[in-house]
Amino acid sequence: MNSEPATPLLDTVKTPDDLRKLAPSQLRQLSDELRTEMISAVGTTGGHLGSGLGVVELTVAIHYVFNTPQDKLVWDVGHQAYPHKIITGRRDRIRTLRQGGGLSGFTKRSESEYDPFGTAHSSTSISAALGFAIANKLSNRPGKGIAVIGDGAMSAGMAYEAMNNAGEAGNRLVVILNDNDMSIAPPVGGLSAYLARLVSSRQFLGLREIARKLSRKLPRPLHTAARKTDEFARGMAMGGTLFEELGFYYVGPLDGHNIDQLIPVLENVRDAAEGPCLVHVVTQKGKGYAPAEQAADKYHGVQKFDVVTGEQVKAKPGAPAYQNVFGETLAKLAETDPTICAITAAMPSGTGVDKFAKAHPTRTFDVGIAEQHAVTFAAGLAAEGMRPFCAIYSTFLQRAFDQVVHDVAIQNLPVRFAIDRAGLVGADGATHAGSFDITYLATLPNMVVMAAADEAELVHMTYTAARHDSGPIAFRYPRGNGTGVALPDEPELLEIGKGRIVRSGSKVALLSLGTRLAEALKAADQLEAKGLSTTVADLRFAKPLDTDLIRQLMATHEVVVTIEEGSIGGLGAHVLTMASDEGLTDGGLKIRTMRLPDVFQDHDAPDKQYDTAGLNAPHIVDTVLKALRHNSAGVNEARA
Amino acid sequence: MNSEPATPLLDTVKTPDDLRKLAPSQLRQLSDELRTEMISAVGTTGGHLGSGLGVVELTVAIHYVFNTPQDKLVWDVGHQAYPHKIITGRRDRIRTLRQGGGLSGFTKRSESEYDPFGTAHSSTSISAALGFAIANKLSNRPGKGIAVIGDGAMSAGMAYEAMNNAGEAGNRLVVILNDNDMSIAPPVGGLSAYLARLVSSRQFLGLREIARKLSRKLPRPLHTAARKTDEFARGMAMGGTLFEELGFYYVGPLDGHNIDQLIPVLENVRDAAEGPCLVHVVTQKGKGYAPAEQAADKYHGVQKFDVVTGEQVKAKPGAPAYQNVFGETLAKLAETDPTICAITAAMPSGTGVDKFAKAHPTRTFDVGIAEQHAVTFAAGLAAEGMRPFCAIYSTFLQRAFDQVVHDVAIQNLPVRFAIDRAGLVGADGATHAGSFDITYLATLPNMVVMAAADEAELVHMTYTAARHDSGPIAFRYPRGNGTGVALPDEPELLEIGKGRIVRSGSKVALLSLGTRLAEALKAADQLEAKGLSTTVADLRFAKPLDTDLIRQLMATHEVVVTIEEGSIGGLGAHVLTMASDEGLTDGGLKIRTMRLPDVFQDHDAPDKQYDTAGLNAPHIVDTVLKALRHNSAGVNEARA
Repeated sequence: MNSEPATPLLDTVKTPDDLRKLAPSQLRQLSDELRTEMISAVGTTGGHLGSGLGVVELTVAIHYVFNTPQDKLVWDVGHQAYPHKIITGRRDRIRTLRQGGGLSGFTKRSESEYDPFGTAHSSTSISAALGFAIANKLSNRPGKGIAVIGDGAMSAGMAYEAMNNAGEAGNRLVVILNDNDMSIAPPVGGLSAYLARLVSSRQFLGLREIARKLSRKLPRPLHTAARKTDEFARGMAMGGTLFEELGFYYVGPLDGHNIDQLIPVLENVRDAAEGPCLVHVVTQKGKGYAPAEQAADKYHGVQKFDVVTGEQVKAKPGAPAYQNVFGETLAKLAETDPTICAITAAMPSGTGVDKFAKAHPTRTFDVGIAEQHAVTFAAGLAAEGMRPFCAIYSTFLQRAFDQVVHDVAIQNLPVRFAIDRAGLVGADGATHAGSFDITYLATLPNMVVMAAADEAELVHMTYTAARHDSGPIAFRYPRGNGTGVALPDEPELLEIGKGRIVRSGSKVALLSLGTRLAEALKAADQLEAKGLSTTVADLRFAKPLDTDLIRQLMATHEVVVTIEEGSIGGLGAHVLTMASDEGLTDGGLKIRTMRLPDVFQDHDAPDKQYDTAGLNAPHIVDTVLKALRHNSAGVNEARA
Repeated sequence: MNSEPATPLLDTVKTPDDLRKLAPSQLRQLSDELRTEMISAVGTTGGHLGSGLGVVELTVAIHYVFNTPQDKLVWDVGHQAYPHKIITGRRDRIRTLRQGGGLSGFTKRSESEYDPFGTAHSSTSISAALGFAIANKLSNRPGKGIAVIGDGAMSAGMAYEAMNNAGEAGNRLVVILNDNDMSIAPPVGGLSAYLARLVSSRQFLGLREIARKLSRKLPRPLHTAARKTDEFARGMAMGGTLFEELGFYYVGPLDGHNIDQLIPVLENVRDAAEGPCLVHVVTQKGKGYAPAEQAADKYHGVQKFDVVTGEQVKAKPGAPAYQNVFGETLAKLAETDPTICAITAAMPSGTGVDKFAKAHPTRTFDVGIAEQHAVTFAAGLAAEGMRPFCAIYSTFLQRAFDQVVHDVAIQNLPVRFAIDRAGLVGADGATHAGSFDITYLATLPNMVVMAAADEAELVHMTYTAARHDSGPIAFRYPRGNGTGVALPDEPELLEIGKGRIVRSGSKVALLSLGTRLAEALKAADQLEAKGLSTTVADLRFAKPLDTDLIRQLMATHEVVVTIEEGSIGGLGAHVLTMASDEGLTDGGLKIRTMRLPDVFQDHDAPDKQYDTAGLNAPHIVDTVLKALRHNSAGVNEARA
């Protein structure tokens, strides 16, 4: 669709070594070409655009000043690292971004020595950079740790935990706060207001002023009144007291698109700092591409698009996205139930909570990137009689696992977990896959765990969760659009721990949980065609199990196969455990469990991912046939 | 051992309502009696002493000023809540603290309406209090949320996440920072240094000064230069800029033992605050009991003791504690390996990292209560060639689950997890039990999971972990002392994924993982006495499984029973899954899995806990006999 732009200077830069041979006066042109190339590439592949556009100059400046890859550069989240990829030897593959077999949409250690640490989940960069800094310090090797972290990511607790420990690194740690007043959604909370004040209260520092401040290289006598006075004086002048209090030398705010300013400041930080530095850089998400600058979301994540017009390839109209079915169902339920609240951790649109917020703004809480707080806050709400729904992606709920255990499950508080992006997630790859939630939730006493087979089921489960006041309850559903079933006029209250028979047979029983139901039904057709009468059940609940149904199916079928879009330890494990507890397999019943394989699967098209995982209809058929053929006296058969 | 003290005034106070009828002039005497009673009680039961002694006056003042239980008081961690329990209707049971069937050593919702939120893990209180505050605000009911949180707990990310959201609550949120410059160990990091500066740089505020500051009730025009100037002015005067920046009105520091000062300040905060308040109170851990004041750990956790002398009942000399075996083994290994590092999250002595620190101080990192950072920091160290050991209790590693998944396992980085307090933990109860780690770790690709059956095995596993550079590895071991086996002169390098036969038989195979090996061997004796030849294997690895060994035992035995000190989804689930994948059960093999029951078990003596859990030798024997008797054609048998 788009032609590749002419980039004569960029063509000479294969790696940062080439970059460092350029004169400072050439860096503006290089940045412009880099931006053009990035727009062209993302136009071809789709992906994250706005974040990368905002850090083009910063990317050039960092690699120009610091000695990468010896200095370890960690891009927080990593979706802004496309320009970085282009100038660190990966330009020839940049149009494979997020495609199967192509470059990852995040930084990845296996891709390049310039990616010393893989990122994707927010707010890990300072901890990792500190690790690099300390390792080199202990080994008496050169090498700093450099973290580039957005203002939104700063709201996560682990960034604060890391800042609190920065003193360990001395001047080997540099944190570059990339403040674009926006992560995926506009940021929230006290820190955000603080940063806004820092930026709004003063002009960008002049070069002369910066040089003077940094060259002072004040000794820092801790714990003395003199120190305190000095610090407040600097706070007044420099405006970064909060970071200073945590032990950083604060520099900023700087214009992150002014490369002539960035270079000398970073050089000073590199050479003159006596302790960890925090460089506060202000950038504009989507910078330099008009359609992105003008869009509300700054083209955070885009489909393929026409570079000239900015017009994105429209997804085919189809079934509604799961997240919207959830958000709209909850908004409707809340019309007659004033206790329903929705909580999101900086993902209002990704979770569909924006639909709820529109109707019920005072009952919507966007807590920032703060899943731990989100869950315990919800527990507090529940303890005081509210019906809170925590809408969090499966992979991000991992951040709040202890809070789910300690604050919700142990206390048996009725917090509702709406778990989006459960299972495989396509182009976002392994870091964003929701593979483990069935396992880590179903192992907890008191927890109810449901999985929706389609969008109508999601409606029922949202309603069932709202009505379940006796303890915590979770329901998972996948990324993307529904299967196209009709949405119910009225939601149905599901009986806790009860599945449903979708199709009846007599020889083979397929026990599906969640999204693979359609494939199980396809498999049943194919088995039936081979003369194998097949039952398909949608268990709906991983916990509590429908033991009556399972017992009955095991007693009346020759082969029982469980199917789930989750890793080992989930539904299959619970079914096997129940069967062995009750001695149901003692008579030679054949049970098999189908689940996600024991690997972190790379990004790919969803269909291919399911194929790789072995969770499509042909794999189900194959599993059944192998089980039927298996002679218990014969050689052991490995799972294909 | 100790006689109960005379407490005439305290005897009249059954609940806070009684307390609030007293004159302010009586509160000093009440505090003194409360302190005496608490010392007497803990002398009888053992438990947490120093923390409670430090907050006697604060406890009295809070209940005197605030309208508990309508105002929701959340004690962070909760081990300082013994005085609170005494004056909230639980004095008659205070000498049952931490005993089976007795009061919990933490706050617990089921115990009292004055415990609106259970605590035990650190740093949850602000989130929970915010939940209470918002719920009441939404419902137009009275009721504030009050969090009392220590300075150590402030280093955890979730406390920061909650502070960042405090603005939501308006004046319904009160955070009382109980600054005793010490959590369990001396605190670390930038925040701690900051608090020390706040306290050291000024005298405690005079009453007049406090009243004047609070009565100013400044309007807070945000985002203006005026606001900024005002804020720094107040920062200079009040000294709490960091908290102010996050949106709190800061008051302090106050002398937390001066009840005449606490009462009017808290009254002002209650009545006059316009937004969330942070009240900075300085207390002394162990206050008012000479032996505690003089002890380095301020009698944080004690055995039963003589009140007059402070002398604690000595534990019988016995086998070394697991934590010390780990710490000393690692220290020794590090003598010849300069890459070994140890990381603890504020638990240097609890994890045995203090032993390592003594020998290798520059390679020891106490990051504060910051498990998330600890793990990702370790990942950074590992990525740069170090061999980091993260020593974290099983229950606290839950805090870093996402970091284990995202920063360690996905990147296959060789971080070593030394998981202490795995399994049941006795008097600390459900909140501290390490029940889930096998399940949540073994579900992760790339992860190796070991469990030590005794302290000699722990030596081998520590060494094996040090030598395992190809990916992450975890080893779990229990709370308490070893079994008394001889420690090896030289550690043994275990083959990854290989178990060992401890005893050979032919009819019954017991597959033990970790601590229940001794009980499995006892059970084998009893089975043998009944003529049932029994094999006992110590699998050592939950992941990767020793599939050769398991396959062989399944092929040659009639009943196979797995035994682990962990919840569903762990070893038993993995063995069953492997067996069903391979069709090993198709011929009618009887497999049973023994694990922790699906409940959160209350605190009790360890022996009783195992008995309740059904994981002692008689339960193993019973499981085997039932399985042998079970007729597959007969009625299904439920697990006892």
